[in-house]
Amino acid sequence: MKSHPVSILAVGSLAFDSIQTPAGKAEQVLGGSVNYFSIAASFYAPIEVVGVVGEDFPKNHLDYLASRKIDITGIQVVPGKTFHWVGAYDTNLNEAKTLSTALNVFEHFDPRLSEKHRQVPYVFLANIDPVLQQHVLDQIQSPRLVACDSMNFWITGKPDELKKTLKRVDILSINEGEAFLLSGTRNIVKAAEIIRAMGPSVLVIKRGEYGSMLFTPTSTFIAPAYPTQTVVDPTGAGDSFAGAFMGFLAEAGAHREMLKTDPKQWDLLLRRAVLAGSVMASFTVEDFSFKRLMRLENSELVDRQHKLMAMTSVQ
Amino acid sequence: MKSHPVSILAVGSLAFDSIQTPAGKAEQVLGGSVNYFSIAASFYAPIEVVGVVGEDFPKNHLDYLASRKIDITGIQVVPGKTFHWVGAYDTNLNEAKTLSTALNVFEHFDPRLSEKHRQVPYVFLANIDPVLQQHVLDQIQSPRLVACDSMNFWITGKPDELKKTLKRVDILSINEGEAFLLSGTRNIVKAAEIIRAMGPSVLVIKRGEYGSMLFTPTSTFIAPAYPTQTVVDPTGAGDSFAGAFMGFLAEAGAHREMLKTDPKQWDLLLRRAVLAGSVMASFTVEDFSFKRLMRLENSELVDRQHKLMAMTSVQ
Repeated sequence: MKSHPVSILAVGSLAFDSIQTPAGKAEQVLGGSVNYFSIAASFYAPIEVVGVVGEDFPKNHLDYLASRKIDITGIQVVPGKTFHWVGAYDTNLNEAKTLSTALNVFEHFDPRLSEKHRQVPYVFLANIDPVLQQHVLDQIQSPRLVACDSMNFWITGKPDELKKTLKRVDILSINEGEAFLLSGTRNIVKAAEIIRAMGPSVLVIKRGEYGSMLFTPTSTFIAPAYPTQTVVDPTGAGDSFAGAFMGFLAEAGAHREMLKTDPKQWDLLLRRAVLAGSVMASFTVEDFSFKRLMRLENSELVDRQHKLMAMTSVQ
Repeated sequence: MKSHPVSILAVGSLAFDSIQTPAGKAEQVLGGSVNYFSIAASFYAPIEVVGVVGEDFPKNHLDYLASRKIDITGIQVVPGKTFHWVGAYDTNLNEAKTLSTALNVFEHFDPRLSEKHRQVPYVFLANIDPVLQQHVLDQIQSPRLVACDSMNFWITGKPDELKKTLKRVDILSINEGEAFLLSGTRNIVKAAEIIRAMGPSVLVIKRGEYGSMLFTPTSTFIAPAYPTQTVVDPTGAGDSFAGAFMGFLAEAGAHREMLKTDPKQWDLLLRRAVLAGSVMASFTVEDFSFKRLMRLENSELVDRQHKLMAMTSVQ
């Protein structure tokens, strides 16, 4: 079986989350970066997930993913418990506080790709150990586009390994606090310059409810967040942002070579992909876990995209 | 002497500031809301300032204001010392910490308007006691547009008086933290709804380096901040934002009646005024006091406005 010409390989965590926010509490709900990523991305393109869960992980959720045409053959079910994250948000919903992390079966996660996975044209390396991110890249044959995420834990704990990963990716998507930590400066323009010099030609800095910024070799784009009245749980906003962003690029057949062949079109595609990410994230936060995404209609996405464009127009 | 048909009356403080930021220190430099406001606004329209200073205030600065065609006949020089604010910013440059405030002659500020001031078409009430703001409005004959600012100190200390002021203004311009405090909610969409119900038909919520949001009866606009690499001192960013915003509206001959006669054009004008404010603020922060504004060229404003528009375009 061959990979679909626009499919995305997503490697990262599937998890249980226990979350407390000003809007309420959710105990042991489904979460994890590639769960959010792949559900969001599946609105745009076929997804192949590589991850690991314990025997306690609900089979019907894997069935649900499969029903969205998400290839789950790369999700290993192994003896033991699934990764469990416990976190809380105070009134500043832009930053999660980790209360506890039980890696469980995720501790020995070793992503091994099938022949089909190796041929995938688009790759998203969610926030996992940069050594594993490189290990995935070693197995990929000739991707059109590779994006990755990271976090404070790796920026501080494995900076050299992370830098090796960054040399090999086209796009890095991280949040603002992480960008400041990684670059060593608190100015976003300078931070972007420093980080792009580490490797990624394209950098997306996510700023929570303040939107995001996109830095490419030819331009800077300031993207708004969609202002929703209903903010229940910010968990997964960044991963679902990345999902819609990569999904949009894959659906459009984006290729890193476009930077050379048609830099203007490349920039425009990236900008629209960022807006798709913004809109997706705005739905994610409206309920706990990915409940809102599971009941999301394509027409709602389109409607909110139009509204967001209207909210930034000066014409 | 009659007021110019597009001139703006600005009532507020002229001060000395002593400021500490991550970029350095400035002792006893010129500051105050209407100083920033009127220098910024004077790029667009004639300004008439009403304020009070002590005998220690440099006469050559008043001459400088006059050289910018700012009418300073409303600035009283009285025995005593000028208002002195001492503040600091930590790495989060979006929020000032007040270390001390010496009101000095400002304590007995009682804005009395000349005949010329009373006929002014545009009014900006900077962040002063809401009782004084009302006192100014009592003296104005028939303004085309009234905008005001406020701050935590009055929101908490004189909420009832502030609400009386709000019933009488067209536009309120405050920062995000103040909007949350005034509305009692941390969601910006809900906060805007609550505050607009208090009176101001138009609300601008300033979000520091994250830009601002504009709420009108017919639409919502999400405005970017211009991302500058040089952030030396955020003091006065909000007041110079308001100055360019009001200056732009005055220059365009805006009138509150436009909401009824041409709501689309009204929204567009307000949006462009917000962008003018964003650009002005981005220059203000590039040096201590209003040093950057004093050496600012019109061509730089236009250039940065174009760049900012390009940074939000998806076409």
